[in-house]
Amino acid sequence: MSQAVKVSSLSGADDNPASRLSVLVAEDMARVNDLVNKRMQSPVGMIPDLAAHLVDAGGKRLRPMITLATSAILGYRGDHHIRLATAVEFIHSATLLHDDIVDGSKLRRGKAVANRLWGNSASVLVGDFLFAQSFSLMVETGHLPVLGILARASSVIAEGEVHQLSVIGNIDLPIEEYLAIIEAKTAELFAAAARVSAVVAKRPLEEELALDQYGRCLGLAFQLVDDALDYAGDERNLGKQAGDDFREAKVTLPLAFAYQNSNADDKKWWQQILDADLRSDADLDMARQKINQHQGIEQTLLRAKAYTKQAKTALSGFAPSEIRDCLMDLSDYVITRRF
Amino acid sequence: MSQAVKVSSLSGADDNPASRLSVLVAEDMARVNDLVNKRMQSPVGMIPDLAAHLVDAGGKRLRPMITLATSAILGYRGDHHIRLATAVEFIHSATLLHDDIVDGSKLRRGKAVANRLWGNSASVLVGDFLFAQSFSLMVETGHLPVLGILARASSVIAEGEVHQLSVIGNIDLPIEEYLAIIEAKTAELFAAAARVSAVVAKRPLEEELALDQYGRCLGLAFQLVDDALDYAGDERNLGKQAGDDFREAKVTLPLAFAYQNSNADDKKWWQQILDADLRSDADLDMARQKINQHQGIEQTLLRAKAYTKQAKTALSGFAPSEIRDCLMDLSDYVITRRF
Repeated sequence: MSQAVKVSSLSGADDNPASRLSVLVAEDMARVNDLVNKRMQSPVGMIPDLAAHLVDAGGKRLRPMITLATSAILGYRGDHHIRLATAVEFIHSATLLHDDIVDGSKLRRGKAVANRLWGNSASVLVGDFLFAQSFSLMVETGHLPVLGILARASSVIAEGEVHQLSVIGNIDLPIEEYLAIIEAKTAELFAAAARVSAVVAKRPLEEELALDQYGRCLGLAFQLVDDALDYAGDERNLGKQAGDDFREAKVTLPLAFAYQNSNADDKKWWQQILDADLRSDADLDMARQKINQHQGIEQTLLRAKAYTKQAKTALSGFAPSEIRDCLMDLSDYVITRRF
Repeated sequence: MSQAVKVSSLSGADDNPASRLSVLVAEDMARVNDLVNKRMQSPVGMIPDLAAHLVDAGGKRLRPMITLATSAILGYRGDHHIRLATAVEFIHSATLLHDDIVDGSKLRRGKAVANRLWGNSASVLVGDFLFAQSFSLMVETGHLPVLGILARASSVIAEGEVHQLSVIGNIDLPIEEYLAIIEAKTAELFAAAARVSAVVAKRPLEEELALDQYGRCLGLAFQLVDDALDYAGDERNLGKQAGDDFREAKVTLPLAFAYQNSNADDKKWWQQILDADLRSDADLDMARQKINQHQGIEQTLLRAKAYTKQAKTALSGFAPSEIRDCLMDLSDYVITRRF
């Protein structure tokens, strides 16, 4: 079954930390892919069809990789990390399906988003199915605290998404509020994906929290880079439409930096453009110019770097190993990625 | 806080089993209402706003009432049934929010559906939030099997909804397949709502399964009556738009009965009308006539009665008590309800 799943590596080059990590957890990841395929099955054919459309598109499998790699750091011996990594991937897939309804974006992982092919209704319901399946997988681990962590993460993710929705077009969004949103909608699942490893490996709370911190900071850096790439990335590499955030009047850090450092005229331009019903490609070009003028991208990446430093520190208490060092390097790597 | 929640009784009359049951579990239900209000809170204001719109509209609170009443039958002493009843209500609320996107219906509990006021995106995400909150509540009971039962129920519900979606307009839908759909989308949660009481009360599997059977048969009867009322009910009493199923080309039992007993000309009419992009009020009137001609409503209610008989039998093994007898009577009562 695992051959059916195309998983794109994090980069074309083989010597980067993501690729090295992929190799280190390859055996476990093959089992995760098998379980993903198995648990998205249903006698209701539309469910595997729609789920496969998302899952076969690959994606980086970054979140389950974190669960597998942190389990390896802890020397965990057992099967539960496979179930948890699958559960984490299902939660992520469910949020993508529900997110695409939110965003109205056209491309996801280089393919048309599912709701454009099957409709909003089916996307919502298949997301619900995957979400429920993820909880069944957690139950099978027999570790109740895992369910507590991932249920809370799921609440927080939904809160973050609604928060983001409720500040659309709000150009005055304080940077702290923006950071709270991306911590909720993105970093919380990274944190949980790392933390649950310590639970099934029965490690002390201190290690649980260190892994949570690693995942959280990595997730924050990851989302900051994502938001930078939405202005600076190349659509062919991104696998999704560039400029989506701007089109949707979503205020992210590159824009917030540019706006806050603008003169009165430019501020007025930003206000008007975000208030408008639609933003054209020409508007996007202008926005990019203004963002570059104020080093919006560089400032965003600088903030991301601060988080990757914290991510590394969080892992420094664990015994050195190839996989630990790889996870540390990964946090640097998410900054340099171009897609 | 409980005063803030308006819960409509199952009937205007006070001597019916639903009203009697409401009185018997009133104290516990007040605690459920408090917990519902508490756990739908979030610093992200759009979440309680949207959730309150649904929750304040009341609804019959039938599912949590089943959890409370079955707990009472078993003589359960503790707090977990309050959490479970709240969790069940949240799962139900989440499916309503996600369902309204599916159905595109305009009224729910007599109010405009949430997605028409806040948009599809917010409805989906607040549904996700409530769903995640329901799992957090279950975790707090410390009973892992409860999570297994309700996670599986959630998968089955989503499967049932997708199944229903995938057979829209399929006039040849076999009655067995229709029954499988309503068992999944509706009866499974009734079954789980009853069954989890036995888990927290630490009763033998036999009692768990008897309660599951009660809930399942009650849920099947309930949905059959719902589908009958969509053709035979009065919109003012229903609190939702009548004729929605027909407008959406959803094949339910009244229609399936009528179709299967029609002559060739009438069959052609049904096929054409369900294939059409839109169905008018005049079409609905004609559909009602044809359904009445073949006793579609009576046949549907007859089937529902067979399930209520099974529901009663399932409870016959439990010691007689006012609340047990009330639950038995409730199964008859869902047949006679007019909304």
